[in-house]
Amino acid sequence: MRVPFEEMKKEIARVFRKCGMSEDKANLCAAIHAESSRDGIYSHGANRVSRFFNYVQEGWVDVNAEPVLEKSFGALAVYNGNLGPGITNSLFCTDRAIELAKEHGIGMVGLRNTTHWMRGGTYGLYAARKGYIAIAWTNTESCMPPWGGAEPKLGNNPYVMACPGDDGEPVMIDMAMSQYAYGKLQVVRQAGKKLPYPGGFDKDGNLTDEPGPIEESMRILPMGYWKGSSFAFMLDVLGAVLTDGIGAADIDKIGKGSCGGASQVFMVIDPAHLTEAAKIKETIRKAKAHIKSSKLAQGERGIWFPGEDYILAKKENSEQGVFVDDEVWNEIKAL
Amino acid sequence: MRVPFEEMKKEIARVFRKCGMSEDKANLCAAIHAESSRDGIYSHGANRVSRFFNYVQEGWVDVNAEPVLEKSFGALAVYNGNLGPGITNSLFCTDRAIELAKEHGIGMVGLRNTTHWMRGGTYGLYAARKGYIAIAWTNTESCMPPWGGAEPKLGNNPYVMACPGDDGEPVMIDMAMSQYAYGKLQVVRQAGKKLPYPGGFDKDGNLTDEPGPIEESMRILPMGYWKGSSFAFMLDVLGAVLTDGIGAADIDKIGKGSCGGASQVFMVIDPAHLTEAAKIKETIRKAKAHIKSSKLAQGERGIWFPGEDYILAKKENSEQGVFVDDEVWNEIKAL
Repeated sequence: MRVPFEEMKKEIARVFRKCGMSEDKANLCAAIHAESSRDGIYSHGANRVSRFFNYVQEGWVDVNAEPVLEKSFGALAVYNGNLGPGITNSLFCTDRAIELAKEHGIGMVGLRNTTHWMRGGTYGLYAARKGYIAIAWTNTESCMPPWGGAEPKLGNNPYVMACPGDDGEPVMIDMAMSQYAYGKLQVVRQAGKKLPYPGGFDKDGNLTDEPGPIEESMRILPMGYWKGSSFAFMLDVLGAVLTDGIGAADIDKIGKGSCGGASQVFMVIDPAHLTEAAKIKETIRKAKAHIKSSKLAQGERGIWFPGEDYILAKKENSEQGVFVDDEVWNEIKAL
Repeated sequence: MRVPFEEMKKEIARVFRKCGMSEDKANLCAAIHAESSRDGIYSHGANRVSRFFNYVQEGWVDVNAEPVLEKSFGALAVYNGNLGPGITNSLFCTDRAIELAKEHGIGMVGLRNTTHWMRGGTYGLYAARKGYIAIAWTNTESCMPPWGGAEPKLGNNPYVMACPGDDGEPVMIDMAMSQYAYGKLQVVRQAGKKLPYPGGFDKDGNLTDEPGPIEESMRILPMGYWKGSSFAFMLDVLGAVLTDGIGAADIDKIGKGSCGGASQVFMVIDPAHLTEAAKIKETIRKAKAHIKSSKLAQGERGIWFPGEDYILAKKENSEQGVFVDDEVWNEIKAL
C-alpha cells in the first residue's frame, strides 16, 4: 500500500514513544525511518520498526541512553554510544564531526558501543545537505564468509561516501560489502525469481543465482569476490581501532541483535577551504554527463550516478505516497 | 629470472638518473619500484620502469618538478604536483598528511595535477609502518565502462586503506575498482588460460571469463558490478573536489599518459589519541584469527588477511631474489 509521508512519520513516532523514547527523540527517529522508506530504502525504513521495537523489549537498545565523550584530541573525538538508539547516536556524531570540520577543515568522530544505524546513507545525506563531504562506515556482526571460507566471519560493514551535488541532491554511495543483502535474497526468492548475477554459494560450494540455497548456506558473496572480503576486513578493524571499540569477533559475543555493540566512524570535510562551491557543482555535473555519454550496453535502460536511485524513489514516493508492504504497515499499526 | 634486490634498485636508479633525475630522487623512486616488485606487485615495479622512461621522453612527467602548496587550513592542505614524478609527489604528500595528523590527530592532503603514483599501497605501508592509519586514493583517466554502459567513462581509481599490524607488517587493501587489471587480462591470455571468474563483457555484451575478448571490447567489469561502478564515480569526483583538481572527464583531455594530471587524496590518522598500541595489535590479531577460524570452502587452500599476499611474496623474493620477467629486465638494462 501507499501511506502519506506525514502519516507514516506520525505512526512510527507513536511506536517509538511506546518504546519509552522522549517525544523529540521519537519524532527524530520516526522521521529518519520514514525518509528511508520514502527514498526507496524500505529494508531500513518502515520495515525495521517492529524489529527495533523488539530490540528495545529485549533490552538490546537503551532508548534513553546518550553518547558520552571518552576521548578527544584536535580534530578527533571518541564517544561511547551506551547502546542508545543507533539513529540518534549516529546523528549526534555526524554533528560533532561537522563541528570539528568547521574548526579544523576535517573532523573524525569514532562511536563505539552503539546499535544499528539503520540506513547508513542518512548520515552522508545529512552532512552533504549542509555542504560537507562525509565518509562513514559501521562494522557489524559476522554475516558473510571471508573469501576462501565457508562460514560467516566478516560483517557486511556498510560504507558511505557523500558529496554535495550539482542540483540540490547530493551524490552518494551507501553500500554493504556483500553483493546482495539477505533482505534482497528473501524478496527475490518470494517472487520466485533468480538474482541478476550470482549472489553466493550453495552448501556444496557452487556459485548460484538462486537466492534460497544461499540463504540456507549463509555463503553470501562479497562484492568483487576477494576484493569485498578484504575491504570488509579493513572496515571491521579500522572501525574498532578508530573508535577504541570492537570488531566482528567481539560483536558476535555480545548477542544483542544485529550491530549491538558495533563501532562506527564519521569523517567530515569542509570543502570550502579546498575549492569553490561553483567548482564542486561543475565537477559533479561534468562527471555525471561523462558517464551518461557512454553508449548503452545491450539490454540496459540507462546509466545512473550514485544516489540517482534514491532521488527517483523519493520523487515517486513523495508524489504517490510512500510504498510500504501491507503486512509491515499492519504490524506497525498493531504495535 | 631473479635479480638481487640491491642490484634491481641500482639498475632502476641508473635509468631514472638517465631521465634527468637528481641522484637522491632517482634512488628514492628506484627503491619504491624495486620494493613493489619484491612485494609481488610486478605490474607497478620493474615492469613500469621503461614506460616511465618513455613518459619522461614524451614530456609527460617533469622529473625536476616539486609539489607546491596552494591552499591550507587547519588539518587540510592542497598541493599542485606540477606533473612531477608520481612517487615523489605522493610520498611528499603522505609526509605532509602525517605532520598534520601529528598536530591535529588527523590530516588530509589533496594533490592535484600529478602523475601515476605506481603502487598505491606504497603510501599506505609508508604511513602504517610509522604507526599511522592511512586512507588514500587516486583518480585516473577513463578505462572502465560505468554500469549499464559499453564505453570506458570511469577510472579504475585505486583505493588504499592501511593500518599498523599485530606482527610488524601492516594490514592493507590496495585495490582498483575493476575486478581485474588490464595487466592481469594480458598475463592470463598469454598463458592461454581463463579468468577464475568473469572479468567483463565481450563486444556482443556477453559476460565472459576469456581475457582476449574483454581487452578488445575494453568492457572490463567493475568489482561487484554496479557497486564498483558507483564507488569509482565517488572516488573520481571526491578526488577532484578534495584537491581542487580534475576528474576522469578532464584527465582524458590532457593526453599525458595514464594518470597524467590526476588528483590524489591522502588521509592520515594518529591512532595514539584514540586507543592504545597494544589494543590495536590485539584487534588485528583477533580479526585475523576470526576469519582464519572459518571452515575452508571446497577447493580453497586458505583464507588470507588483506596484505598477506604481499608479505608472502616479499619473503620469497627476498630469499630467492626478486622475480622479474626476462624481457622486462633486458629492456631496463638496455635503456
